[in-house]
This record gives sequence, C-alpha cells and structure tokens, in this order.
Amino acid sequence: MRHFLQIDGLSTKDLHHILDTTESFTSIDDRAVKKVPLLRGKTIVNLFFEPSTRTRTTFELAAKRLSADVLNINIATSATTKGESLLDTLFNLQAMNSDMFIVRHPESGAAEFISNYVDSHVSVINAGDGRHAHPTQAMLDMFTIRKHYKEFSKLRVAIVGDILHSRVARSQIEALNILGAKEIRVIAPRTLLPANVAQLGVEVFQNCKEGLFNVDVVIMLRLQKERMQGGFIPSEHEYFQLYGLTPERLAIAKPNAIVMHPGPINRGVEISSEVADGPQSVILQQVKYGIAVRMAILSLAMSSADENGGGN
Amino acid sequence: MRHFLQIDGLSTKDLHHILDTTESFTSIDDRAVKKVPLLRGKTIVNLFFEPSTRTRTTFELAAKRLSADVLNINIATSATTKGESLLDTLFNLQAMNSDMFIVRHPESGAAEFISNYVDSHVSVINAGDGRHAHPTQAMLDMFTIRKHYKEFSKLRVAIVGDILHSRVARSQIEALNILGAKEIRVIAPRTLLPANVAQLGVEVFQNCKEGLFNVDVVIMLRLQKERMQGGFIPSEHEYFQLYGLTPERLAIAKPNAIVMHPGPINRGVEISSEVADGPQSVILQQVKYGIAVRMAILSLAMSSADENGGGN
Amino acid sequence: MRHFLQIDGLSTKDLHHILDTTESFTSIDDRAVKKVPLLRGKTIVNLFFEPSTRTRTTFELAAKRLSADVLNINIATSATTKGESLLDTLFNLQAMNSDMFIVRHPESGAAEFISNYVDSHVSVINAGDGRHAHPTQAMLDMFTIRKHYKEFSKLRVAIVGDILHSRVARSQIEALNILGAKEIRVIAPRTLLPANVAQLGVEVFQNCKEGLFNVDVVIMLRLQKERMQGGFIPSEHEYFQLYGLTPERLAIAKPNAIVMHPGPINRGVEISSEVADGPQSVILQQVKYGIAVRMAILSLAMSSADENGGGN
Repeated sequence: MRHFLQIDGLSTKDLHHILDTTESFTSIDDRAVKKVPLLRGKTIVNLFFEPSTRTRTTFELAAKRLSADVLNINIATSATTKGESLLDTLFNLQAMNSDMFIVRHPESGAAEFISNYVDSHVSVINAGDGRHAHPTQAMLDMFTIRKHYKEFSKLRVAIVGDILHSRVARSQIEALNILGAKEIRVIAPRTLLPANVAQLGVEVFQNCKEGLFNVDVVIMLRLQKERMQGGFIPSEHEYFQLYGLTPERLAIAKPNAIVMHPGPINRGVEISSEVADGPQSVILQQVKYGIAVRMAILSLAMSSADENGGGN
Repeated sequence: MRHFLQIDGLSTKDLHHILDTTESFTSIDDRAVKKVPLLRGKTIVNLFFEPSTRTRTTFELAAKRLSADVLNINIATSATTKGESLLDTLFNLQAMNSDMFIVRHPESGAAEFISNYVDSHVSVINAGDGRHAHPTQAMLDMFTIRKHYKEFSKLRVAIVGDILHSRVARSQIEALNILGAKEIRVIAPRTLLPANVAQLGVEVFQNCKEGLFNVDVVIMLRLQKERMQGGFIPSEHEYFQLYGLTPERLAIAKPNAIVMHPGPINRGVEISSEVADGPQSVILQQVKYGIAVRMAILSLAMSSADENGGGN
Repeated sequence: MRHFLQIDGLSTKDLHHILDTTESFTSIDDRAVKKVPLLRGKTIVNLFFEPSTRTRTTFELAAKRLSADVLNINIATSATTKGESLLDTLFNLQAMNSDMFIVRHPESGAAEFISNYVDSHVSVINAGDGRHAHPTQAMLDMFTIRKHYKEFSKLRVAIVGDILHSRVARSQIEALNILGAKEIRVIAPRTLLPANVAQLGVEVFQNCKEGLFNVDVVIMLRLQKERMQGGFIPSEHEYFQLYGLTPERLAIAKPNAIVMHPGPINRGVEISSEVADGPQSVILQQVKYGIAVRMAILSLAMSSADENGGGN
C-alpha cells in the first residue's frame, strides 16, 4: 500500500480496509476543527501534468486536513519548459525531501513509471493517468455506494457513457468486480466501447431501456466535449436523446436507485438537471466523501512508506 | 453577520462593533508571532472571478493569521472552463466542507446570489462585486478614519474621482452615512457621476476648489485606465489638471486633513507623488489596517456561522 | 546578516557560521516531522519578477519547514500590471506586515535596491538578480563541497561554461575566494568570459584538458539555450564537443573529484548522462542541501531583523 496506482491487483480485504479507514475520516470532516496531525511535517507534492482544479483541490484539502505541507507543481509552467526531463524534475523534487507525489498525467502508466524511480520511503498516488486508471475516484465511488447499500453482492450497477476513454470507468469496474457486485453493466454506443470490453467482466448494453432495468446504482460518465470532433457521437443533442439520464429513463431502474457522476457534470448532455438535482442523486456526496477517501489513502500510503523507509 | 455582503442595511452599532473588533486584531499584527488559532481547521476559499492580487493577498494573510487553511480558486482557470456552471462549482466546493467563500466577481450582486445558495453553516464575504459594493474596503477606510479622528459626527469627507464605476465609493458613502459623518462630498466631472447621485446622501461638486474646502478627509479614487477609451474623460493629463491631488489643492482642505486612496495608486494621474508620499497621506496605514479589519470580519462571520450550523 | 544580498563583503567567519547553522538543519530534514517552529507567525513573501519554479520551491519549502506563512507573488500577474510601481508594490506588501522578501529579479542590483527601502525589522534575501549574484546557490554549493572535503585551502575548483552570464559563477567565485580555496579556475570560450575576468581572482583556461587537470571539484554551469541565438557559441553540439563533461574528460580531474551543477541540467549539452548520473555526481545532494542552507539563511536573517526591530 506504499503506492496507490490502480485498483487492479488489490484484494477485497484491501478495498474494505480503505473504506473502513475512510469511515473514520468522515467524522473528522464534521468536526469544528477539521484537522488531524497525522502527516505533520510531511511534504506532499501535487505533480500535475494535466490541469484539474477539482482533483488537485480535493487532494490539497485532504493533505492539509492531515496537517501536511502541500506543494503544487504545474508541470506546464515549470522547469520542464527549460528542457529538464521528467525524471530530473522528479529526482530534484525528491531531493528536496518530498514524501509523496500525487501524479496526474495524460499518458497511461505515468504514475507507475514514476513509482519505479522514487526512493523507498516515498509514496506515489495515481490521480489519473491517461485512459488507464483513476483509483481514488473509484474508491470514493465505492464508499458512496457502501454508504447506501450494505452488501455489494446484491447490487446491479450500470455505468453509462464514454467507457472507451474513461479511466474512471475502468477503475470502477475493477473495484466492483473485486468487491463482488452481482452484476456490472456498461451502456454505451459501440463507438464509445473499448475493443476488449467483454474481458472487463461486464455485460454490455447498447440501450438504456434494457441496460438500466432493475439496477441499484446508475453511474453516469462525463462526455468529454473535446472528443466530440472525433466523430464518436453524432451530436450532443442526439447523445442526450439516446443516453442522457432523464427522470423517465431513471424510472427504469429500481425505485431508490442512486445516481452517481464523477463530475463536472454537463447538464443536458449526459444528465438532465431534474435528475442531477433530484432526490436520487448522490453526486455531491461523492465530492464530500472524496476528501475522506483521499485522507484515508494518503495516510495509509504514508504509514507504509514510513515503515519502509526506516527512521525517515 | 454570517455573511458580509454590503454596508447598506447595517446599523451604527454593527459598524462600531466591527471597528472595535478590528482594534483588538491590530495588536496581534504587532506581535512577533502574528497568529491566533481562532479559525484553525476552517477551510476558507478565495473564489475570485476577477484577478486581484492585492485583495486576494490581504484576505489570504488575514485567514492564515487566524490559522485557517486557504484555498485560492481562480475561476478563469478552473472547472467552469470545462462547462460547469457557477452553482455547480460552488456546490462542489461546499461539499468539500468549505466553511467560507470570499467572492470577487465582475457582476453586481454575485456575492449575494451565492449567499442564497450556501448551507446555513457557510459564510460568504463580498470582496467586490461589479459596481455594487466593496464593504471590507469601506470598513478599513472607516477604521483608518477612526484612528485619526475621535468622532465621525464632526467630519467633512470628500471623495474625489470616478464615483460612477466605483464600488469602493458606494460602500464608503453608505458607511459614512451610517456612522453619522457631518458632510459627505463627492467631487467628479459629470461624466463620472452616477445618475442617482443625489439620492446617495452626498453633496456634489464639480471642482476641487469648492469641494475640498475645509474637509477633514480626502479620499482619492483610482482612475481605472481601462475606462479611458470610453470617452469619460478627455485624457489622463487633463484629468490630473482638474482633479489630481497636488500639494496646492490639498492645502484647500483643513491643515491636518488626511489623504486616503484604496490603491493601487496612479502617480501623476489622480494623485501627485508629493501628496501620496507626504505627511498627510495615510495610504499605507489603510493597507496595514486592511489585514486587521479582514481578520475581524472573517472571525465575526465565522462565529455567527458556527452558531447557525450547530455542532458543525 | 539582516539582509543576504551577495557573498562579496562577507568574512570567512560569516560563511562558516552559515555553513555550521546549515549543518544543524540537515538533521531536521531527516526527521519524520521535518518542521521546527522557529519562524512561526512570520510572513515570508516570495517576490519573483522572473519565473523559477525550482528556486521558489526550495525557498517555499525552507520557509514552511521553519513554520512561516508563505506568500507567492508573481509580479508578471500582479498589480504592477495595473501600473503600480515596484516600490509601491513593495510598500504595500510591507504594510501587510510582511517580515521578509525573497527577491528574484532580472536586473542586477534589484534585491539591494529593495533592501534600501524596507523597514528596519524586514529582511531581504537575494534569490538571484540579473548577472550579479545568487548567494544562496553559492552557499549550498560551498556546503556540498565542505561535506566532501574537510579543508577549502587544499582544493582546486574548476567552473566550466558560461561565466559571462552566470550570477551563480560570480557568487561561487567570491565564496571560494573568501573560504580560501587553493585555486579557482574558470574554463570557457572567450565569448562566454566577462571582460574583467582576471580581476575575479581566478585562473582562466580555454580548454578542458588543461583546466580540469588535477582538480578536486568540477562545477558545470547551465548553458542557457535562450542565449544560443546571440552567436556566443556556434552550436549546442559543438559546445558539447569542446566543453561538455564526459567520462573521458572527467578522468582528467582527480580520481574522486566531485561534479556539481546548479540545475536544471541540459543532458548532452553541458554534461553527459553518464557523468550526471554517475558516482562522482553530487548534483542531487546540492538540491537536498539547498533546503537546509536556505533554512539556515532565513532563520539567521530573521533573528537579526528581530533584534533590529525591537519588540516586533
């Protein structure tokens, strides 16, 4: 648990351990003084090669609430522009006695690549790498689901939208499989499905009517508008007609099914405002739990790293 | 006092309560360790839709000296660029357990709009909205005046310059009226006066010779050069000839009249360097008191919000 | 020692005092909680008129590990764009009760200029000014050398590369002279040597074969690619052929000579990867000691300023 790079490879016990640890941190979030001194004196570097105010902010808040010092490094504006290589930047930051790197990168595998080069007392957390994984997002989604349903083994979960490009979906599917969800469905047009979709351990649906039938959890994915040009879907309007989550469509699911979305949402593209703001939506709870789950992951990783690094 | 959105609507007692609280914080500013733990564990978000290093910095310093954690969100570079609405951004930040939003926005009424949507334990502070209000600036101006004169009821105050576009002037005029200043004068060319100027409770002068006569306080406004194109004034040079504060012009006021300016100053446009750096200038005192007045307002607002939010 | 503007003018005792203080801070860097409360409640302003993620980061980490509050002011995006003068910006920041300015500026003498205007309880640290000086870099270099060799008086040191434009080289040469190095050599093409090079107290070499012979320390300078256009050198390739540090060339120096570089390195331009990553390279140690040396300098300066400023 020194690094947290992907869901794949973790055990059911690992995931429940993270979720249980998260539970203890949610109570901190409700206190007047929302701080614990667990990571006091640690230096955590947000190493972002891709802009993301939202994800960076949740990690920054999680780190500050653990009393760590946070350094935000936006690589677009840093020394790499002076011709320095990624590894040189990394080794320099490490030499400054950084204890943890939270890495977001447009290339799949970047966080793991970095983890192969850091010292034994340094942790690497994947905050999203290419299309590969976004494991902290998946864990906050699992935590949100577990807050609403006792057992994963009874749950039918539908993930709707751009599975092809989504590191979020990939990590969610892995986590749901490890936690033993009864059924994982993906609902998407063929153009937004990966070639190997059958091997992911999911059932594939092309339409919502069948795919949403009787599910307990509906996870909507963000339609990344920058991919509209590519011809993956005819138009936003048509996408909404076929896959947008409306009250009528949500009624196909179980009566109290919860609706999730990793955010930021595109109202009227993948989800209607009635549903996003409606009683079944747990979208803002996901954001709230996102801090606690990251506090849990940072503190678990740091404590493994401390053991590993001996006196340091 | 949970929100601090404008001066209008506050009582004389309210304003003096803020000024008295500020007084207690000025002493902290002179200590070796300029920190108090009043807001420890609170998360304060600087939500700036308009760039302003100076105002953001003073709020950030005030918050840090109260031991709060500060998050700077520059909306131009954040998720709104991904198509997220203002309210979605707000609700997301709130779900991350933010305790206070300090809002600067180019539209009048933005801070109040936001205050209508936040949870009952969250505070909103207006750090300047369009042409409407800049209430913390007005309070630091009032504090500066009160440091130099015992009673507002004996004071003649002149505000010189671009009243039309100035949220600062509007808030100052409201505060001076509430605190019972003897006379509030505005001095400006017709083109820089709002249509309803007579209803603001001020006397209007078009020239400095009459307007500055016998005043105790001269408040110069910043001439926003970006408005020069609009034809509001013929040229910077001509403006300085007519309204710039020179030693000769200042001599029209009372001998020990104080000179104020919200900054940043345009030397040679609205004020000469002799006056800006002269013995009657209290411009840097305003900056100094700006930290203490914001510490006072943040802590008063947070303590109201805490009562409101119950255990949280 | 209230300001730290340049090496020139300091005594051997001064420099050893800084190096001894640094020694005590290196142990802090190895603790689990890498923080000491020495500068708690102090406000340190990183006043950067030139972008530099690396230098700003090391000062920010040093300040945070001393428990100070840090304000990063990037002048390109601040009030100076609103037409405010440098001194007005400075006085405003000072009025906000800043305790220290860490200044980087493209003009030689900028930090000293600023130091002439600050209050008696405020410190100014030069983080690089034009071609003049980069004294904290020189001190971390001296510390790195002292970690490897007991006595400066027995050392031959070669500095290779763009001496002409290098504030780093200038400060290193001053420090090495003050600390009594046996021999200081500079190795560079004529076009990259300053006119007054003979007066710097160095021996000048135009080729590595002679210049590197028998030296204990090789300091490579960064070739600033933005100066390539100026015709100072024919091409990067040719530069590497003549001055790049390869294993063969390093073999001319003493067998255990250490290799230093202020970073960020241009692999294949001024140094080969074999040498940069090889056993004689202490480049990452320099980065590591950079934090400790800056903690030492900030705390020494602040304690002088505190004495100077009396109760404040």
